[in-house]
Amino acid sequence: MAAPWREHLEGWPLPPAPFRLDPAKTALIVVDVQRHAADSSVAVSVFLKEHYPAIAEYYLDRLRNTTIPAILRLLGFFREHDLRVLFLCVGPWYKDRADLSPRMRRREEGVNQATGHQILFHHDDPIHEVVPELAPREGEPLLHKTTMSAFNSTGIDLLLRHLGIEYLVFSGLATQACVETTARDAADRGFNCVLVDDACISFTQAAHDATLLNFAATFGRVDESETMMAELAAALRRPAVAASGWAG
Amino acid sequence: MAAPWREHLEGWPLPPAPFRLDPAKTALIVVDVQRHAADSSVAVSVFLKEHYPAIAEYYLDRLRNTTIPAILRLLGFFREHDLRVLFLCVGPWYKDRADLSPRMRRREEGVNQATGHQILFHHDDPIHEVVPELAPREGEPLLHKTTMSAFNSTGIDLLLRHLGIEYLVFSGLATQACVETTARDAADRGFNCVLVDDACISFTQAAHDATLLNFAATFGRVDESETMMAELAAALRRPAVAASGWAG
Amino acid sequence: MAAPWREHLEGWPLPPAPFRLDPAKTALIVVDVQRHAADSSVAVSVFLKEHYPAIAEYYLDRLRNTTIPAILRLLGFFREHDLRVLFLCVGPWYKDRADLSPRMRRREEGVNQATGHQILFHHDDPIHEVVPELAPREGEPLLHKTTMSAFNSTGIDLLLRHLGIEYLVFSGLATQACVETTARDAADRGFNCVLVDDACISFTQAAHDATLLNFAATFGRVDESETMMAELAAALRRPAVAASGWAG
Amino acid sequence: MAAPWREHLEGWPLPPAPFRLDPAKTALIVVDVQRHAADSSVAVSVFLKEHYPAIAEYYLDRLRNTTIPAILRLLGFFREHDLRVLFLCVGPWYKDRADLSPRMRRREEGVNQATGHQILFHHDDPIHEVVPELAPREGEPLLHKTTMSAFNSTGIDLLLRHLGIEYLVFSGLATQACVETTARDAADRGFNCVLVDDACISFTQAAHDATLLNFAATFGRVDESETMMAELAAALRRPAVAASGWAG
Repeated sequence: MAAPWREHLEGWPLPPAPFRLDPAKTALIVVDVQRHAADSSVAVSVFLKEHYPAIAEYYLDRLRNTTIPAILRLLGFFREHDLRVLFLCVGPWYKDRADLSPRMRRREEGVNQATGHQILFHHDDPIHEVVPELAPREGEPLLHKTTMSAFNSTGIDLLLRHLGIEYLVFSGLATQACVETTARDAADRGFNCVLVDDACISFTQAAHDATLLNFAATFGRVDESETMMAELAAALRRPAVAASGWAG
Repeated sequence: MAAPWREHLEGWPLPPAPFRLDPAKTALIVVDVQRHAADSSVAVSVFLKEHYPAIAEYYLDRLRNTTIPAILRLLGFFREHDLRVLFLCVGPWYKDRADLSPRMRRREEGVNQATGHQILFHHDDPIHEVVPELAPREGEPLLHKTTMSAFNSTGIDLLLRHLGIEYLVFSGLATQACVETTARDAADRGFNCVLVDDACISFTQAAHDATLLNFAATFGRVDESETMMAELAAALRRPAVAASGWAG
Repeated sequence: MAAPWREHLEGWPLPPAPFRLDPAKTALIVVDVQRHAADSSVAVSVFLKEHYPAIAEYYLDRLRNTTIPAILRLLGFFREHDLRVLFLCVGPWYKDRADLSPRMRRREEGVNQATGHQILFHHDDPIHEVVPELAPREGEPLLHKTTMSAFNSTGIDLLLRHLGIEYLVFSGLATQACVETTARDAADRGFNCVLVDDACISFTQAAHDATLLNFAATFGRVDESETMMAELAAALRRPAVAASGWAG
Repeated sequence: MAAPWREHLEGWPLPPAPFRLDPAKTALIVVDVQRHAADSSVAVSVFLKEHYPAIAEYYLDRLRNTTIPAILRLLGFFREHDLRVLFLCVGPWYKDRADLSPRMRRREEGVNQATGHQILFHHDDPIHEVVPELAPREGEPLLHKTTMSAFNSTGIDLLLRHLGIEYLVFSGLATQACVETTARDAADRGFNCVLVDDACISFTQAAHDATLLNFAATFGRVDESETMMAELAAALRRPAVAASGWAG
């Protein structure tokens, strides 16, 4: 049985053109799996446990049992086959968050005043780091964003083009925020994008599913990690053919 | 009773910081209400009527009776009070669509081969024009996009900053495609954005609502046109105060 | 004998990597040859004749006898061989120039107050148009800039990438302003650029030569139009070979 | 007596609008003063000494006796008055330089094959670091570029806008390459820019002066460090007035 969000896609008039992943031109993007949002003992996790216990239960369970394991499998696969891996993280350069947009600053201040908690941490704070089990290895760039979309505050566009990357596989959090906004911009600029359902997470299933519906309707593919890796594995077993150029 | 998508927002942990519109720093953005998608006698409308009759019924009814009238009221209000209005449109510069992304080109070719219809028209084609009832007036720029987000293929970022615009009101189509992607990038770059529910339209209510849910959860406000205009009208009746700067 | 600026390049330590033009991936860019700066009867030309007669003499002579003829030969060659041609123009969207940067607005106001002349005209003004003898033909996009570099206020980056363009030939005016700034950004983003000496013009030979020196030292090639067309012509006579990818 | 390049500016028709620095909205940008180009015992310095001894003499003398001391005085002044300081650096993310443009990669390979030397080092290499005497302090962001202009490969545009910066003071190297290209893009996007003559350096005086001429002719101011600091010091002694907004 298809997931409920898939039912809304039946009979959708203008789906994106289909594509098959070419491993040599594919990169895995791991979005913002930092301690502030993915370490169950600090920041967002504690904020949720204290103020949104039902959401905390859903979120921490999915994080531990679904999302982190799926990203670990993706990382294992991409590293084993020498495919490109890139990491993103989010947070201000400055302790006082002066480089965030005024609206983001006010959200931080609002949460802080109401609950004593902090959501985003600046680049030198240990809580800003990628969680240790997913830490980037040598040769895997970690790009610092101050925005949701990496295309709005990093050099990712040129970096991907110079690497010859045409296909992007998205994992991380939050699905409807930094993952979807970066993936939309990537698709809009011509990259062929796969959003990996089980490797992403949001605070609620409804927000997560709303992303999957609209991403699959207009921007690219939504896959389970196993399906996507099976496709890449099959492609890696085939003899290499002449380069087909962008988005063949 | 709240709309169903609003129910999913109850108890949402990290909503965007609230804001009030400052009319002098607010612009209305009318997104892609061109003949190819909003003239019931050509292109997308005919394609839907022939191949997706149930969607055609929903879409053309909402377009005629809800979306176009709402945009007309918004345009009337903004023009009456000398507030900024900008138009966007989408389509290739070239007849053969060589400047679209390969994936968009293949979508066009797929639809054309399967149905004989064309979705996007190049900039000099009459079907590329904004529908006559909403046509831009002198002093209302019309920016040509080749992408969904205006931030990915026009100079809208600098244009808005030099104009001193800090608040954006979004209308047009399709909700989950060009409207949401442009509004997400705008919000991500610091603009305070309102998505106007009744002034936007998608092929299905499910896709439209998925946008409203995630936009309100993370990026900005979702209002009905009357509510938003009432707020602007009230602000216009207040005596002007000293400029408060970005996003006060 | 080499031009004086070339003498300063002798023994330059880190010149850009050499390249040969591939016609199928080459576009001619005609920068800002609009009536405001290239019609001898209005705007800049009259301003120069009244207030800077020596510069007017140099500029109008070079424009009429060197630059315009060179661009006409380039256009003839590119059109004859069905190579890509793009036009840029500069000016505000608004009559009151509200979308120019404050500093550009103040420059306009300063000139206007001191001399009664206007330099830049808004997009709907006839003086904003490309001079008639160089007017764009069907299929030759005209991108509206509000800045010097097309990369700062138009969608030219994606447009060129989707077209498969990797080599750019620059002509137009002014050499040290819109031509050089656009060409620097293009080179910086990976395009292989040729600045065509005789097809460009500035107010003084010193400013023009300063551009040629630094462009050749660090960014790309500086050629005479005949040399560059001879290279393209030779390449067009060779049998096509398999695509070599970016910047081979 | 004016410097020779200043003589070419006499009678220049359209200089940029003048401006005075507002310290609270001013940032010092230190461009690419990394060991690869500013440590006399490695990389560029050794390459010059072995292959371009006359240039090495000029460059190392100016670096040691003019440029580094001027940047140190600027840093001292900005830090003493709690003004913003930002650092840029240049180099690839990858050891094999796969994320540089193909042309830059070929330049590196050409130099390496001909001389055994390497010019650019990847982000984790100690030679990529800013020279110790100018090292960034806490609260002074260091943005990693892979291009000459920071606007082409970092999030500097939004960072500066969110900080409320409207005035930029440029120092570092090389004058005609990363300094000028970043400063041109900054000026083109509306920032009021000062290029500090004695705080910048190129391989030759001719290349350096060509930048000063064209920057002063069209983009912004060229000052000596003492003149610029005197202006800032005077402004800091004046009582604060109401914010005048962009580029007043």
